[in-house]
Amino acid sequence: MFKKILIIGCGLIGSSILRAIKNKKLAKKIFVLEKSKKNIFKIKKINSGCIFIKNINNKINDFDLVIISTPMSQYKNIIPKLNKNLKTSCLITDVSSTKHNIIKLKKKFLSKKLTWISSHPIAGSEVSGPEHGNKNLFVNKWCVIIKEKKQNLKKINLLRKFWIKIGTKVVLMDSISHDKIFSITSHLPHLIAYNLIKTAQDSQKTQRKNLIQYSAGGLRDFSRIAASNEIMWRDIFFNNNNIIKAINLFTKNLNSFKKIIENKNDKKLLSRLSNSKKVRSQIIQLKQDVAKPDFGRE
Amino acid sequence: MFKKILIIGCGLIGSSILRAIKNKKLAKKIFVLEKSKKNIFKIKKINSGCIFIKNINNKINDFDLVIISTPMSQYKNIIPKLNKNLKTSCLITDVSSTKHNIIKLKKKFLSKKLTWISSHPIAGSEVSGPEHGNKNLFVNKWCVIIKEKKQNLKKINLLRKFWIKIGTKVVLMDSISHDKIFSITSHLPHLIAYNLIKTAQDSQKTQRKNLIQYSAGGLRDFSRIAASNEIMWRDIFFNNNNIIKAINLFTKNLNSFKKIIENKNDKKLLSRLSNSKKVRSQIIQLKQDVAKPDFGRE
Repeated sequence: MFKKILIIGCGLIGSSILRAIKNKKLAKKIFVLEKSKKNIFKIKKINSGCIFIKNINNKINDFDLVIISTPMSQYKNIIPKLNKNLKTSCLITDVSSTKHNIIKLKKKFLSKKLTWISSHPIAGSEVSGPEHGNKNLFVNKWCVIIKEKKQNLKKINLLRKFWIKIGTKVVLMDSISHDKIFSITSHLPHLIAYNLIKTAQDSQKTQRKNLIQYSAGGLRDFSRIAASNEIMWRDIFFNNNNIIKAINLFTKNLNSFKKIIENKNDKKLLSRLSNSKKVRSQIIQLKQDVAKPDFGRE
Repeated sequence: MFKKILIIGCGLIGSSILRAIKNKKLAKKIFVLEKSKKNIFKIKKINSGCIFIKNINNKINDFDLVIISTPMSQYKNIIPKLNKNLKTSCLITDVSSTKHNIIKLKKKFLSKKLTWISSHPIAGSEVSGPEHGNKNLFVNKWCVIIKEKKQNLKKINLLRKFWIKIGTKVVLMDSISHDKIFSITSHLPHLIAYNLIKTAQDSQKTQRKNLIQYSAGGLRDFSRIAASNEIMWRDIFFNNNNIIKAINLFTKNLNSFKKIIENKNDKKLLSRLSNSKKVRSQIIQLKQDVAKPDFGRE
């Protein structure tokens, strides 16, 4: 499908893409630009046959597809190198979790001769690093492609086909809608999980009791999400402008929840709890989670 | 071990106890008092050989162990029947998730001739009903036994042995400590999960977008917990007096989290995220969750 693909940043997501490309034979040659020596060592074990490069500005610069899967905070340093070295027919994409700021960044700094269409495959894990990558990580997951005005339809189609071959379902949306939706379905849940674990840690200090050993009653589910990569999540919290609005809505609901409990309002509490209950079956129906109780834990 | 055990209320927890008793042969005869006809029909399919009774006040009243596993809000109606019908040597226990109010209720209404020692096996699921019960539900889980002053040590020991045979690890604590600990490790996480799902539902209405279909990025984990039984959780939220304090601490932390984001305080945010991250590995080390990434979901 592509002659030469370059993956910049090869952690969990980058290495999963690498494995999927190799598995589906989507490129004649795959190049990897990865700064961490530890990661390079781990990637070599995957036997993907990829070629490691140390910089973009070397002789090999005729990539057809460049996939940026570094933390977002590194994009600023990468763009000037893309401007300098890529051929104009090259398609650039990235896999970042927030989009509006990335599109703004691109518009400001990327050469007008180059084409960058932003992607967001909705997949991940609490573990990071290329050793945890998985060629099937994206199978049956959503991949959002950001649709902008005056975009090259042919290249959008090319990118869409790429993600479908990787295994995803593709949906097109604008960056504003994207950031609004994922502030609620992903960014707020992560922030809340981090905050809940912090609260448990604080209580443990005050109560002088080892609370954590009794986590099986609920806390453990949150600890998984709160174990996510801190660099990635710092970048997300700083880049999605909708997160503050999401926190405010959450707080408003929490205050009303508190009042319902304080007033022992039986009817309101029951209706609130049973309303929330409905969402789980929707999520399972939409194949957004496994149907087995307790996530199928043993 | 026991001649006659009576289980009052035979949903997920009651039927799991029933199955475990049968499996470990802990009683010569097991009696079940269950009001729901649907549930009785489902319990019959388990083939536990249990005997269904419609009331406690019938001829068979010489139970050695009575386990109450109805929602807490029903305890008030059950106690007078226990007073009337049980022999004084009978050991009564319950499996409720909050303890201080239950001990107060017991002290107020239970006949002084009877012995009730309260238990809390830390196990459950988002699904309810006897059909989801599992004889191994309690294996390697904690069971808290509430230690009060002037308690019959022989009977505490008997109860401890019972829970160990069921498969749990047993820990003794007072009702106040219990409620403090579980307000943080279980009750607050559930409340927060319910509140997050409510917030997603509200956003879905405002944004007029089907957010739920993009739940794989984090929300789906919370939806599991927010699918828990609403009667049980109403009772818990109304009965644990520590929940308001827990909400307040959570809100305080959330406000400071918000400020950190608004001020783009890089150092503070990174330290907060990486601190929370540590808890996951503790939880896995303490065998409070499976070690596999993503809960071992397929």
